[in-house]
Amino acid sequence: MRAAVMYGVHDVRIETVPDAILKTPTDALVRVTRACICGSDLWPYNSMTPSETGNRMGHEFIGVVEDIGSEVRTVKKGDLVVAPFAWSDGTCEFCQQGLQTSCLHGGWWGGVALDGGQGEAVRVPLADGTLVALPVGPDHALMPSLLTLSDVMGTGHHAALAAKVRPGKIVAVVGDGAVGLCGVLAAHRLGAEQIIMLGRHADRIAVARAFGATDIVSERGDEAAERVRELTGGLGAHSVLECVGHGEAMRTAVTIARAGGAVGRVGVPQETTIPEAQPTFFRNVTIAGGPAPVRSYIEELIPDVLEGRIEPGRVFDRVTSIDGVPDGYRAMNERAAIKVMIEF
Amino acid sequence: MRAAVMYGVHDVRIETVPDAILKTPTDALVRVTRACICGSDLWPYNSMTPSETGNRMGHEFIGVVEDIGSEVRTVKKGDLVVAPFAWSDGTCEFCQQGLQTSCLHGGWWGGVALDGGQGEAVRVPLADGTLVALPVGPDHALMPSLLTLSDVMGTGHHAALAAKVRPGKIVAVVGDGAVGLCGVLAAHRLGAEQIIMLGRHADRIAVARAFGATDIVSERGDEAAERVRELTGGLGAHSVLECVGHGEAMRTAVTIARAGGAVGRVGVPQETTIPEAQPTFFRNVTIAGGPAPVRSYIEELIPDVLEGRIEPGRVFDRVTSIDGVPDGYRAMNERAAIKVMIEF
Repeated sequence: MRAAVMYGVHDVRIETVPDAILKTPTDALVRVTRACICGSDLWPYNSMTPSETGNRMGHEFIGVVEDIGSEVRTVKKGDLVVAPFAWSDGTCEFCQQGLQTSCLHGGWWGGVALDGGQGEAVRVPLADGTLVALPVGPDHALMPSLLTLSDVMGTGHHAALAAKVRPGKIVAVVGDGAVGLCGVLAAHRLGAEQIIMLGRHADRIAVARAFGATDIVSERGDEAAERVRELTGGLGAHSVLECVGHGEAMRTAVTIARAGGAVGRVGVPQETTIPEAQPTFFRNVTIAGGPAPVRSYIEELIPDVLEGRIEPGRVFDRVTSIDGVPDGYRAMNERAAIKVMIEF
Repeated sequence: MRAAVMYGVHDVRIETVPDAILKTPTDALVRVTRACICGSDLWPYNSMTPSETGNRMGHEFIGVVEDIGSEVRTVKKGDLVVAPFAWSDGTCEFCQQGLQTSCLHGGWWGGVALDGGQGEAVRVPLADGTLVALPVGPDHALMPSLLTLSDVMGTGHHAALAAKVRPGKIVAVVGDGAVGLCGVLAAHRLGAEQIIMLGRHADRIAVARAFGATDIVSERGDEAAERVRELTGGLGAHSVLECVGHGEAMRTAVTIARAGGAVGRVGVPQETTIPEAQPTFFRNVTIAGGPAPVRSYIEELIPDVLEGRIEPGRVFDRVTSIDGVPDGYRAMNERAAIKVMIEF
């Protein structure tokens, strides 16, 4: 089968790899119908140590179950399923709490040992804990939105929950990538009154406005913080969604949170420390978040997608075949595309 | 009147200072009956830049209202009152939320402009928002415990709330000072099932055990973290109370929090960054806390003290007159005393 393999910085190749097959009784074999490239794929795209074996890529996909192991009970052959960006057993202490990204027996797609979503098929470990069957066919018009439930929409939702978004609150979103945009949508869905988007790109701002952003701040750093203060009566935002992960973004995020407020971080941290330990302490700012347990949000979000209340699939502004994946990485890295969907 | 004034490192003097007087219609004049020395007073005690004017000290006191300004409504002459360690108007947005330490018009005791609790009398600004009348006389046997409501018991309680202590949870407390000990008591009061105290001093361990600690970890750093892991089935504590503030303590605190857990920090941070940004992210560990809004906890805690359910006053192991305050600082700094009470 064909799949995307990353060998180093800016080096993604489409190659023929061993076919995905069932290996354990709890596996499912999924023929991928849609997948995508993630903003987090750009971190290794820009920093990966050269590798001879390469890493299989992709952690967001929808597909049709082609076969199941003897112990799989919750999905069956022919089901259309969405996979969260981490696989999990669904039964351990953390899964029971809804924190599937800390599953004691789970893990992450791709790398050298597992299939990735950016390929024609995937062996899904722990299929019962991982996959969610969709009540529609693979060509449904809302497929892009359903695909976002594998990561970016659930991640935006997680940021909003971690930042304690509530009806009537003032929310700021740092990061205008697909996750930040989904964070805007999640905050709007949770009833935020004012949603301030920090971003500069016209195409992204347009999506943010459509998702519910009420204000756009295009300054950076201290100037951005000052502008947010102006927009919030001098006090800052109740809830800040940090959807980037680098140091300046995190510094901005914790700076614009008002006293008693919360920062929900979902951007993968690129630094070893969290800045502003003292100002955040003196203002009682909570810092929460991490890899989103999107598995626990999928069932809740499916009806909102299918009934048209949210359309997170608008973050996709480019579609490609598997052969176009390397170019898709380039486009996202150059910010020429917000998010690239792969159709098989 | 006489009061403690700090002039620099290890330089606390008892001096005659101008009498406290009413200055604005919202002030109350309080004759101090009990006060104390705080662990946080030891930070300037060990680091203060020499000052010619000196700083008035003390932010924890109980006293009798001697006079009130024309606009004061909630306390009257003769009332015995407890003062939280920050004064606040009780009406601003943050006070209404119960975050009086971020009061838009409030502030902190002592320094060069205000009286401190370590003195014979205090002008209390914004008396209506700040003071809480006590339903007992100034010589009540439980006065030490009531005095802790001005800071350390409320601060331990805040740490426990920030760390999301709930019935049945596993709690770890970093710091065996009075705040850490009160954190143990607060966690016990909130129903924690296992309370692991990180401490080494026999006198403090004895108090921790009396307050509800189930396990004592006397190792430091990585060894302490390893020991906590052993005590928690390898997973760490659901809730960690950080009651010290220096870098190693914070590193230990975030390291021993389990996935999905929370760290409640109430030790004043001595570093500009929070360590372990990436491990805390990948485990979805929440970092919360800050200066405790003890004003919002006093009314809730008074009945628990008066009805004997908690006795936080056991943290006091030395009593002195105002003249003994410099020696009290020395004793606490050398860890010869846990916490020193001042009787007037």
